[in-house]
Formats: sequence, C-alpha cells, structure tokens
Amino acid sequence: MTRDDARALDARDPLAAYRDRFTLPADTLYLDGNSLGALPAHVPAALANAATRQWGDRLIRSWNEGWFDAPERIGARIAPLIGAAPDEVIVGDSTSIHLFKLIVAALRLDPARRTVVSEAGNFPTDLHVAEGAVTCVPGARLRVVAREDLADALDDDTALLLLTHVHYKTAARFDMPAWTARAHAAGALMLWDLSHSVGAVAIDLADADLAVGSTYKYLNGGPGAPAFVFVAKRWQDCLDNTLSGWMGHAAPFAFEDGYRPAPGMARWRTGTPGILSMAALDAALDVWDGVDMTAVAAKSAALFEILARAGTALGLECVTPRDPAARGSHISFRHRDAYALTQALIARGVIGDFRDPDILRLGLTPLYLSHEDVWRAGDILRETIETAAWQDPAFATRNAVT
Amino acid sequence: MTRDDARALDARDPLAAYRDRFTLPADTLYLDGNSLGALPAHVPAALANAATRQWGDRLIRSWNEGWFDAPERIGARIAPLIGAAPDEVIVGDSTSIHLFKLIVAALRLDPARRTVVSEAGNFPTDLHVAEGAVTCVPGARLRVVAREDLADALDDDTALLLLTHVHYKTAARFDMPAWTARAHAAGALMLWDLSHSVGAVAIDLADADLAVGSTYKYLNGGPGAPAFVFVAKRWQDCLDNTLSGWMGHAAPFAFEDGYRPAPGMARWRTGTPGILSMAALDAALDVWDGVDMTAVAAKSAALFEILARAGTALGLECVTPRDPAARGSHISFRHRDAYALTQALIARGVIGDFRDPDILRLGLTPLYLSHEDVWRAGDILRETIETAAWQDPAFATRNAVT
Repeated sequence: MTRDDARALDARDPLAAYRDRFTLPADTLYLDGNSLGALPAHVPAALANAATRQWGDRLIRSWNEGWFDAPERIGARIAPLIGAAPDEVIVGDSTSIHLFKLIVAALRLDPARRTVVSEAGNFPTDLHVAEGAVTCVPGARLRVVAREDLADALDDDTALLLLTHVHYKTAARFDMPAWTARAHAAGALMLWDLSHSVGAVAIDLADADLAVGSTYKYLNGGPGAPAFVFVAKRWQDCLDNTLSGWMGHAAPFAFEDGYRPAPGMARWRTGTPGILSMAALDAALDVWDGVDMTAVAAKSAALFEILARAGTALGLECVTPRDPAARGSHISFRHRDAYALTQALIARGVIGDFRDPDILRLGLTPLYLSHEDVWRAGDILRETIETAAWQDPAFATRNAVT
Repeated sequence: MTRDDARALDARDPLAAYRDRFTLPADTLYLDGNSLGALPAHVPAALANAATRQWGDRLIRSWNEGWFDAPERIGARIAPLIGAAPDEVIVGDSTSIHLFKLIVAALRLDPARRTVVSEAGNFPTDLHVAEGAVTCVPGARLRVVAREDLADALDDDTALLLLTHVHYKTAARFDMPAWTARAHAAGALMLWDLSHSVGAVAIDLADADLAVGSTYKYLNGGPGAPAFVFVAKRWQDCLDNTLSGWMGHAAPFAFEDGYRPAPGMARWRTGTPGILSMAALDAALDVWDGVDMTAVAAKSAALFEILARAGTALGLECVTPRDPAARGSHISFRHRDAYALTQALIARGVIGDFRDPDILRLGLTPLYLSHEDVWRAGDILRETIETAAWQDPAFATRNAVT
C-alpha cells in the first residue's frame, strides 16, 4: 500500500464528504475517536443557541419548548443506529448509572435467579457497577469469568448476561444474535453495553432485552455526553427503576409524595437532564442522519487493513480480529513498550491511546479519517518504531502528562 | 412603597452592579431564578471555549488539561457557599442520583438503624429517591411525617434524617444547627438538600454529615447543571458509594476488574462527567467570587417586603414566613386560581411559576433583580388582580403551554 494507493481509495470514498462536517486540529492525525469523538463543526453554534437563546432569552419557558422531552426525542434519534424502536431508547445520566438501573431491575424480575454473569476484562465500569448493583438485591452475586467460560457459566440461576459488544482493548466483537440466544436459552435476560460499537458497526439489537451505550465516542456527542438506555418494549412495564427520581414519575409536576413510575421509557429518567450537554449531543447526531452503515463498515475495514499491514510489517502483534465481522472499529497492537510508543506517536501528531499494560490502541472513524490519513499514521508509526529515541526509559516519564 | 422609594433603594444597593453580569431578555421581569437561574453573560464564551478549543482542538488531551479533575475543582468552588471545606464537595450527576448514593450509604453504616425519616411535602424527588434507596438495604424503610411530627419521629431506629433546607413551595427554612443537633441526639446522620437555599441564603453546614444540592437555581449553572454532593471529612472513609463506577475507582486507568474506592470525595464519582455542562457551571460560579452573602440576605429581605406588601394589600395569602431567618429567597402566595394568575402574569412579562394546587411562586434573586424590578412586578400583580380577564375559565387552557 502506497500513499497513492490510499489517495485512490479516497477518490472513490462515498463518505469522503463527511470530513468537512468536523472541525479537527491542523497537523494532527486523530486516531482516538473511539475514546472521544471529534467535534462536528456545527455543534458550537447549536450550543451557543442553547445557552443564549434557550437558556438566556427563553429561560424557564424552554422546559416546555423542547427541553423536557429531550431525553425521549434524542433517544429516538439513536434508536435506528442500534436497531431499536424510537420509543425504546432515552438518553441521560451516564452509562454507569444506566447499567446500575438495568442490573438491579433485571435481578428483581425473578427471585429464583440471583446471578449476573459477565466477562473478566470487560470494561471496568461494567464490572464495578455490577459489583455495587448486586449488593442491592438479597442473595444476588456477580460472576466474572473468562470469555471462553461464558457459555458454561449460564445456568438456571442466571438472571442477566452482561456483555460489552465490542471490547475496549482488543476491539473483538461478540456475535450479538448468538449470545442473546444463549442468554435466553438459559432463561436469562441479555444486557448489551454498546459503548464501543454504536456508530462503529451496524447494530441490530433484535431480541436483546436491555442495552446501554456511550454517545461520546463514535457518535461524537461531546466529552461525557449523556448516555443512552434501551429497554425492549415487552419489558417496559415489568421492570422498575430503583433510581426513582421525579423526572421518571408518571406526573412529575403533580408533586406527589409517593412515587408512581411513568409508562414507557420515561420511568428510566431520574433527575433533571443536563440540557447543555444534551444540546451538543442532539446536534452531533445530525451528522448521522442518512449515513449508510454498510459504507461505514466497508471503509472501516479498508482503514483497518492499512494499519494492520503497516503494523505487522513492523513486527507488531495485532490483537484485533482480522475478520471485520468479529471486531469493532479500532485496531490494537500489543507491545512491551506500548506506553512509550503511544507517547512517541502523540509527539509526532498521531493521537492514539495506551491501555494498560501493553496495548497501543488506534481508532478508525470512517466519517472523518481518510485512507491517506491512516496511511500517514502507519508511516509515522514506521518512522517511530525505526527511531530508537522513544525507547529511552526516561521518555515515558518526561511525557507522562499526555 | 412607591416606585421612587424602590429607585432610592437601588441607588444605594451594594449589589446593583451584579445585574450587568447577566443576560436577561428585554421586557421581562424574571422572578423564577429559584427554578432556573439566569444566564451569566460570560457563560456562552466559556462554553464556546470548552467546545471549540478544549474539545475540538485539544480533543482527548483535555482530559489531562482540566477535565478529569473538574468534579473536585468545581466542588471546591461551591464549598465556601455552604460552609464546607474544599475537599468535602464534588459536582456531577444530578441531585437525585447523589441523594440515592448518600441514603444507601447512610443506611449501611449501622445495621441496627433501619429508618430514613423525612418530611411529607418535601420536594418529591427526595422522597421518590428515598423510596427507591430503602429497597436496596434489607429491612430499611422510609418514614414520611408532617413537619410538626419530625422531632418525635427520631428514635434509635433512625439511620438518617433527610430534610430540604428551604421548602420549594413555601420557602420556609429549617433551623439547620437545631435539626442537625436533633438528628445527632437521636444517633442519626443528617442529610441536607440545599437545592433551594444554596446561593439564596448564607449556609454553614457545620456539624452536618451529608448534603446535596442543585446548581441550576441560585447558582445559575445552567439547565440541569451537575449537582453537588458534600460528605463531611469524618465520614469520607467510612461510607461507600453503591453507584460504584470507574470514575470513583482508586485507579481508574489501571482498568482492574475489581472495584477499589478512591480515597476522599472522588469515590462519590460514578461515570464520566458531562464536561460541557460542567464548563458552564464552572464559569457561572465566577459571579459568586467575592459576593457578600450578608448583602445578598439583606437585599433578599428588602425585595421580599416589596412583594409581601403588594400581595397582602391585594388580599393574597402569603404562605412564606415573614421572618427572614426562617425562609429562603422566594415568596409564595396561595390563591384558588393560582394557575390562571401565574399565566396572566407571564402574559404581562412577569415570569414566576405555579406549584400545584394553589401556589404562585416568585423568586427573589438579589444579583440580578433590582428593587424597582420587584416593585414593577408587584404593580403588574396589582393590575392583573384588578383585571377580570385572567379569571376567565378558558384562560388556563389557552395558555397551558407556558
């Protein structure tokens, strides 16, 4: 693969025009959109409108002019990206908070089932939140097993199987229909964390029961943007939200002492939603209107190949599956000095990230990375590897801030 | 009180200059800052900086350039407004979420104490969240009693007394030291909800154990701005956060499977904080730097008198205590047709709000309301009351949107 080859791919890239919808810093190749998505160019204006016109000028009246139903309205915009119905998704709070709500609810559905099963090495907050959630239900426990032992761990005590669709380190992707079917065969509910897959790959939740996900990665909703929560329609009236706040009440402005859950997804609301962060997310989703996920997947695969070849030619171990259907949209290399290597790349303008203890992780975001961008990143990776400077043991210390 | 009297008070108002630090709509008297604070004029620029420079240009690097420690840094700015130490307060999530964390933690401290006591007619989310929280601790229960029965309700089964410092409807203020002492005398912890008092009155949490509060009312942090949580230093290592997310882990970037709580206030973090909403709040707090709360209290009292006299002259029943030390910074009138009256005032440019079933509520925010503003609001109240139009039963229906 030469630079000209990459340019030729760009010339016939159906997604090439999307690059102009983002603001990106000059002299930087941003391969960390899997951690924090780039800024859609029109978002600052939308944010200014939310602050100046909605808050400053309309003040309290804005609650009746679009703020109050923002969680449902924005959720409905995310629904098509995950194969859900518009009234099965709302946004608000964080992924962690939503996980807690759903895990407790799932454990309370059937007192005969007491175990939440999840994967060792899952994204930590999924496990940490599950640890806290099981303390809220008598007899409940969290069972964390290696991926290869997951199927055997499902039994008639399993209340919930909690999996992250695409792994944050390796980008390995679970076969969603197969694992949902396994959970159901064991009589358990299936909860998918879509944080590393929404906007990265085509998703069809299909028979899944529950899901959560981050909107600040591939959806470009902004740092710490409100997360989404999905509850399949068939469960919406059976599951209760333990985080029962006034915004999830059937009549929030009746100011009743007793809690009565709202019908539908609204019961998964808790407190007052963070409107400014919501406004940025709402605008960011404009970019996704009409995007063809097949084209995204095809370009992601092409970008992956460029870096996979560059890395393996340099002797780096690629820990991401080579089959596009078995991964998300980042690539990870294992290297003994991954931390120093990551820092050296950043110093050369290639922003990726390091994941403890030995992973260099590079995000592939088809909407704002060209084939040539990724080719250049691979070339800078080559230059870096071929230079001894970054291996200096003092390097990591000097650059630890980034 | 004449308009000239009000102008004379404005001429010697030490807080008069603060009005210019806010952007307010023309032709509007905004008496709803107790629900949603007005927009500080410099906040849109701070928000634009957070979006364009921090997110757009610095991207992921911003996490190390001020984002990661925003909850602690902004919490330390709120601490002096509530009589707390800088390392006793963080911001993030919503008031409801923080309430849940603290109620569960307090119930788990001493298995011999199973009851949370709170007040009937407390702000609903406090009661709703407590309802959910007690289901997470075996044997725990919520006991809701009338204000006059609160003292008798405290006994050796009481784990926690949960009170809202200033009542959202009547503005009645609890005597904070007296009630904290009563809770402690019963062996219970004291949790104050400061949502309707922070920035409205001088607060000294003193011996209180726990507190939460909203930042989008008198602190002007923006719609749904992140809430604050206070845990007295002596409790910080004894209480656990059931909403144990990765951001509250002792080493969030070690990506360990098992949860280890961070020392100090950081363990009360859960998920990734909403940075854009945080940026607005951070900037909004600039207004409070150096504000003399004695001057705020004095002006609030003067503004109250103007409206109290206007209302009572019109035969309205004022349900807010006349003693300034026994109230917050809003005034409420009871009226059979309070809803229609509120709508009629809004139609005339006086923005207050209605609280079910019969309360007209008017917020008194000394930083951006002049004595003349409030005098005019009182005069428009008089004109409105003296006009029969708003009593038309069809009026409420026609104007129900606002």
